[in-house]
Amino acid sequence: MLAEIISIGNELLNGSTVNTNAAFIAQRLHECGMETGWMQTVGDKPDAIKKAIGLAIKRADNIIMTGGLGPTHDDVTKTTLARYFYVDLEFNETVYKRIKDRFDKRGIPMPEENRVQAMIPCTADLMLNTVGSAPGLIFRSKKKLIFVMPGVPHEMREMLNKSVIPILMQECVDCQISVHIFRTTGIAESVIYQKIKKDLQQFSEYEVAFLPKVTGVDLRIIRRGTENKNSEKFEKFKNILYNAIGNYIYTSENLPLEAVLGKLLENNKLKIGVAESLTGGLVQDRLTNIPGSSTYFMGGIVSYSNEAKVKLLSVKRDTLAKNGAVSEEVAKEMAMGVRSVFHSDIGVSTTGIAGPTGATPQKPVGLVYIGLSYGSQTIAQKYQFADNREVNKMRSAQAALELVRKSILGLDI
Amino acid sequence: MLAEIISIGNELLNGSTVNTNAAFIAQRLHECGMETGWMQTVGDKPDAIKKAIGLAIKRADNIIMTGGLGPTHDDVTKTTLARYFYVDLEFNETVYKRIKDRFDKRGIPMPEENRVQAMIPCTADLMLNTVGSAPGLIFRSKKKLIFVMPGVPHEMREMLNKSVIPILMQECVDCQISVHIFRTTGIAESVIYQKIKKDLQQFSEYEVAFLPKVTGVDLRIIRRGTENKNSEKFEKFKNILYNAIGNYIYTSENLPLEAVLGKLLENNKLKIGVAESLTGGLVQDRLTNIPGSSTYFMGGIVSYSNEAKVKLLSVKRDTLAKNGAVSEEVAKEMAMGVRSVFHSDIGVSTTGIAGPTGATPQKPVGLVYIGLSYGSQTIAQKYQFADNREVNKMRSAQAALELVRKSILGLDI
Repeated sequence: MLAEIISIGNELLNGSTVNTNAAFIAQRLHECGMETGWMQTVGDKPDAIKKAIGLAIKRADNIIMTGGLGPTHDDVTKTTLARYFYVDLEFNETVYKRIKDRFDKRGIPMPEENRVQAMIPCTADLMLNTVGSAPGLIFRSKKKLIFVMPGVPHEMREMLNKSVIPILMQECVDCQISVHIFRTTGIAESVIYQKIKKDLQQFSEYEVAFLPKVTGVDLRIIRRGTENKNSEKFEKFKNILYNAIGNYIYTSENLPLEAVLGKLLENNKLKIGVAESLTGGLVQDRLTNIPGSSTYFMGGIVSYSNEAKVKLLSVKRDTLAKNGAVSEEVAKEMAMGVRSVFHSDIGVSTTGIAGPTGATPQKPVGLVYIGLSYGSQTIAQKYQFADNREVNKMRSAQAALELVRKSILGLDI
Repeated sequence: MLAEIISIGNELLNGSTVNTNAAFIAQRLHECGMETGWMQTVGDKPDAIKKAIGLAIKRADNIIMTGGLGPTHDDVTKTTLARYFYVDLEFNETVYKRIKDRFDKRGIPMPEENRVQAMIPCTADLMLNTVGSAPGLIFRSKKKLIFVMPGVPHEMREMLNKSVIPILMQECVDCQISVHIFRTTGIAESVIYQKIKKDLQQFSEYEVAFLPKVTGVDLRIIRRGTENKNSEKFEKFKNILYNAIGNYIYTSENLPLEAVLGKLLENNKLKIGVAESLTGGLVQDRLTNIPGSSTYFMGGIVSYSNEAKVKLLSVKRDTLAKNGAVSEEVAKEMAMGVRSVFHSDIGVSTTGIAGPTGATPQKPVGLVYIGLSYGSQTIAQKYQFADNREVNKMRSAQAALELVRKSILGLDI
């Protein structure tokens, strides 16, 4: 089953937006055993859109389109498709009500412009948009399916996972596939490869991909067809993997680290408080992305000034004067301080030089200390990152969450 | 002058790599007044590559291709192009020496595989690769130029800027363009459109695009050719725009809101403290993404529990009991509290129901109060968002930063 992805939008053609949608769709299809044969990107122009569909219908089995479903004059995807398939647009009461409800909920009168989003090509099936106003559309042409989704990434992702993929999976007979994600942090891609390279040879039927991100490397293993059922062999693979790099794998369930840590805190009935300097709130932002995090996350302090470190976290003036704010000692006192303020079981802290300014010969940009106070112990771990400000913050926040995870599990740090 | 970009690589079609190259090329062309009409992505397959070139040569003036110039068996771009244009490959001594030199410098013997990179289609011009081994190629077909570059992003970027753009600029006579971005928040795309729709008609020579994001809508205006020089007309356009929606435009310089606010705080010598509940640290994370933010951002408190609100921010137990944590009154007391803790000129606070849990019939998911204490005033603003947890947090953080900006400028809230 070969798919074609058509991305629509002038913002893509002038380069102001990177086409992450196409990669996301292709990756999800790939994980489900379906391949993408071609991608096209065209502007918000009826003629270009028509030609793109014409070409795709000739060569692909299914077509996935995104973009141009908004309420303004430059959104022409829907009307173009209606013309292409010779169908009329009809006013859809249900869709209209859903859009109006969205505005009502926010207490805003619905602008007349949004009314056009309720005009639906009469032969098209609808896909629910749970996070935006424009519904998705499905056209059929000689057994081929043409999916049309909004271009707003979070709307598209939701719709792809909830509607497009399940529908395609029903149609695809030999899409027997299983995908396993092992997420690591604190270990380089090349080091992982070095450690498992030799063993990988006995699993040549597995498709193993290394997906590096700023916060760590994901390993994606795809098993297809009959091999998919050989669970004994996969158990062997997992054993080898965990023996080699198990310490660095924080999940095999494709969850973010804050979700893994959240479960761990909840299951162990542990409460946590956070003191942040260079990460500026990012550690807490991530912890609170998890629903129900208020049961284990008590709160925290962003002590961006020395004064705040002293006053709110009881860091000693003397410690600051002797070692500077970016030091093992201050990281430790911050962790102890925040633990005491929030009466929590765990206190974790970050301090470092985010850059681009603030470095000294002894303390370069990217130097970071993470403090941890838990049980009878308070430690601080040193890291040297070497990136720009935002990336240094992201790596530090990840390192802080990981340090807490390892400590709770009693793993080597 | 209309260009077409063809990206080649299986890693693009299976979604493991996001196609940042195409966006980078398109953006650079656009900045130089050249438009991209189409983008295609195909795999490392001779047949697919040939069809893609065939299509592009029919419709585009120039073609820019990337990918598939490496030394391994799956790099087929060069041989495919040679066949397409009926030219032979010839061994090029100079190219060979350059590749060998690169390996010599690193003290590595050159693998035999790299020798194929010195085989060059005999009619093609070469583009120097200063940061990698594969040279770029230029083919000509009936006055059309076909540029072929490596897919490795930093090699491609260097070659694009040093070779492709200068050559294209020589050929393009009327490449004069200016791009303006006006970033808004707190106003829906359709409402902006409603307010300026009528006036837009007199500026039909401008290309106006609405680019909606979770945190607001960007307006991008492109002016071309001679119109570009008519600054009086553009001043008129700006006047109309600011009269209609000026309150919602936080920058015309394509900056994030936290950078705009940072400058404003710095220029007015104002210091700020932040108290966050539902946003969980995101407001502070954004503020601290700006280098030098420590001059105006004092720090903040994430008071995720009632206890923390009382203890650290001096919110009254009575206020909490009477109104609940998500209320105008608590937002105000949080803002006053954090202002006093950090002795700052401004205190801003967030409290709300991020969801998916925690809602009551009176307080639905997405209900948010932002508190602000500044000068002699303390106010709280109510918002009703209706999204998922992370999006509600993002919208709330944006609303908090915007409320501060408006207050400092004395704009209507």
